[in-house]
Amino acid sequence: MEAIITLTTDFGLSDGYVAAMKGVMLGINPRAHLVDIGHFIMPQNISQAAFILASACPFFPRGTVHTVVVDPGVGTERRPIAVRTPVASFVAPDNGVLTHALEPFLDGSGEAKEAHETGLRLGAEAFVLNRSEYWRKQVSPTFHGRDIFAPAAAHLSRGVAFADMGEHTDSIVALALPRPRRESDGSLVGHIVHIDHFGNLITDVRGGDLPPALPLTVEIGSEIISGMSHSYAEGRELVVVLGSSGRLEIARRNGSAAAYLKVKTGDEFRIRFLSEV
Amino acid sequence: MEAIITLTTDFGLSDGYVAAMKGVMLGINPRAHLVDIGHFIMPQNISQAAFILASACPFFPRGTVHTVVVDPGVGTERRPIAVRTPVASFVAPDNGVLTHALEPFLDGSGEAKEAHETGLRLGAEAFVLNRSEYWRKQVSPTFHGRDIFAPAAAHLSRGVAFADMGEHTDSIVALALPRPRRESDGSLVGHIVHIDHFGNLITDVRGGDLPPALPLTVEIGSEIISGMSHSYAEGRELVVVLGSSGRLEIARRNGSAAAYLKVKTGDEFRIRFLSEV
Amino acid sequence: MEAIITLTTDFGLSDGYVAAMKGVMLGINPRAHLVDIGHFIMPQNISQAAFILASACPFFPRGTVHTVVVDPGVGTERRPIAVRTPVASFVAPDNGVLTHALEPFLDGSGEAKEAHETGLRLGAEAFVLNRSEYWRKQVSPTFHGRDIFAPAAAHLSRGVAFADMGEHTDSIVALALPRPRRESDGSLVGHIVHIDHFGNLITDVRGGDLPPALPLTVEIGSEIISGMSHSYAEGRELVVVLGSSGRLEIARRNGSAAAYLKVKTGDEFRIRFLSEV
Repeated sequence: MEAIITLTTDFGLSDGYVAAMKGVMLGINPRAHLVDIGHFIMPQNISQAAFILASACPFFPRGTVHTVVVDPGVGTERRPIAVRTPVASFVAPDNGVLTHALEPFLDGSGEAKEAHETGLRLGAEAFVLNRSEYWRKQVSPTFHGRDIFAPAAAHLSRGVAFADMGEHTDSIVALALPRPRRESDGSLVGHIVHIDHFGNLITDVRGGDLPPALPLTVEIGSEIISGMSHSYAEGRELVVVLGSSGRLEIARRNGSAAAYLKVKTGDEFRIRFLSEV
Repeated sequence: MEAIITLTTDFGLSDGYVAAMKGVMLGINPRAHLVDIGHFIMPQNISQAAFILASACPFFPRGTVHTVVVDPGVGTERRPIAVRTPVASFVAPDNGVLTHALEPFLDGSGEAKEAHETGLRLGAEAFVLNRSEYWRKQVSPTFHGRDIFAPAAAHLSRGVAFADMGEHTDSIVALALPRPRRESDGSLVGHIVHIDHFGNLITDVRGGDLPPALPLTVEIGSEIISGMSHSYAEGRELVVVLGSSGRLEIARRNGSAAAYLKVKTGDEFRIRFLSEV
Repeated sequence: MEAIITLTTDFGLSDGYVAAMKGVMLGINPRAHLVDIGHFIMPQNISQAAFILASACPFFPRGTVHTVVVDPGVGTERRPIAVRTPVASFVAPDNGVLTHALEPFLDGSGEAKEAHETGLRLGAEAFVLNRSEYWRKQVSPTFHGRDIFAPAAAHLSRGVAFADMGEHTDSIVALALPRPRRESDGSLVGHIVHIDHFGNLITDVRGGDLPPALPLTVEIGSEIISGMSHSYAEGRELVVVLGSSGRLEIARRNGSAAAYLKVKTGDEFRIRFLSEV
């Protein structure tokens, strides 16, 4: 069966690890179409992987199987899971790495301060990949990507039923996601959640968090940026745009906002709304 | 329809941007064969992208669709275009990034000092991608790669007619290409146009620029290199070879000529021809 | 014919070299499934390429064609070869880059101190790729990857017979592989053969080199590590595990052992076995 399998790992591209996973996948499903989402996740950075996965997976066709291996707990008690939603399938360690991708399907708890168990809804279902007949015969305790996740993704891509590969589970681990904070003076404090290759700052402020058509200024470090721009090329120095992921971005025209502002993931910035007096 | 689509961008591989484009392409043409030319173009470096594209695209089979997204003007008035030649198709912003790949099809003007409009000939045709029914439904002003170029390439790869996707245009933007300069003393002054991963210096001097069989020396920085070598491994330190792209290259055996000579793209060097007295 | 071709080079991903090879391959076999093993081999590092290839190739399906282009002698007398084993095919310069992948098929000589000629056995056969009708029409002396190895791999993937593409040869070049050394006090001195993306130290000590169930300590630099762990996450600081390649690895929990220990490939370490007194 032809199907797309994506791969997201923190393995980098200088070792044979990613290729070993692909070899295993193609041995099980020679017709699988393998697409890299990315392998330059910082080592063990579950939160970054969760963001990157969600920035790409919505654009893949229905039925795609997304494999994520950022797995600091490999070889320990953390569970390998598969999750099915009405539009896609996911194979990953149960450590929160699917949080952003599954956000519409996760039960409440936007208030959580740390990683926590959460239920699934809206037709999503999770399974623990505990049927060893769908693993490689020998499982290395240090490389479940090759020995458990790759075969699982390949079997799913061939149409093996989730329920055959493991037992149903009611809840999975979710990360606590940063959320912008409303201050008593009416301003909104957001966070940088990702710095991209261009040095653009991607934030936790979504279009819907902003009152429509209200003029605003963004304060970050010692800079004040007035108003939003339509595109990166419009502003002079720093620009604030509603980016391609539906999130507010702070960018620098033909340059790196991150380098210019000397900021990092997790840093805060403030949006002030100017009521028209 | 099975077809090859290549991708060349300045997106790097640490974000989900390239994968988002691939997901969109595969949603439109599940049988497309996606091949990366490269994603490590320096941010906004149109000239470098134009060179890299042209170094790879001639080796792809007839009918390949080459997608290039190095697009500092995204969201502004610059046009998205598709170009058809007798051997390949191209989808890109109209900013000169196709200059080297289309060189045989561009009208004259090798003398131009800066980017300029140029006509096409020899059976090549250009179209402005302005039919929004071939875009994604929502177009982000910051990511035309995903929302305009990826769907356009995928539709072309399925056989949609160019004329359906946009209106014919007579001219496109071309970069001014560096050319070697003949000096009054008979020497030739060339330029470094690209420094590759090995530190080899690729130049704007082609085989045809050199008189056949005339002994020569190359002066670069304070170094003088006598004669040309057949292969990288032949010379002792620095070698001058006619490289795999038909261009003169300056290399260092098992080392980086760029690091050794401390040169950069755009730097000049001189070739002296020794008449046999 | 559908078939998998893998690519391993030292070309990096910032030039068009890898894509040029892929274009050539797809021109010859449009149904080839191309998979990158890796392109970040250090320039001209044959030994590293040999290791990386062998860490991935065993996981590909029977019949896969592995193409390796790490080729400091390109354009000189070194031979281009193809090797067939009962499970896979290889196309590469004859410079030892296949040593690890072919280890089970190479005649003896584990004692060799430097690269040497060796015969093949167990059903493996080698051929010199000297039939130019299977090369590109014009062969650049600086890019056999594109002009000899890529077409050879693509033709093999279509089912062209090895014997048609070149003449049989009885021996190929093999590298001298590091081996752990037994000292007179009973300890074993091993070598770091690879440092991976995570900073894990992969060694030349295999599971079979260790007496079963004997308690051990590992001395590396000024550190002493007591006992082996099951997984990376188990230990406190430094851990010794039997890694996914069947080799002893020294790792640091959620960190880089290489950076912490300031070691490099080739460095030695010592294993002491504690007899139960």
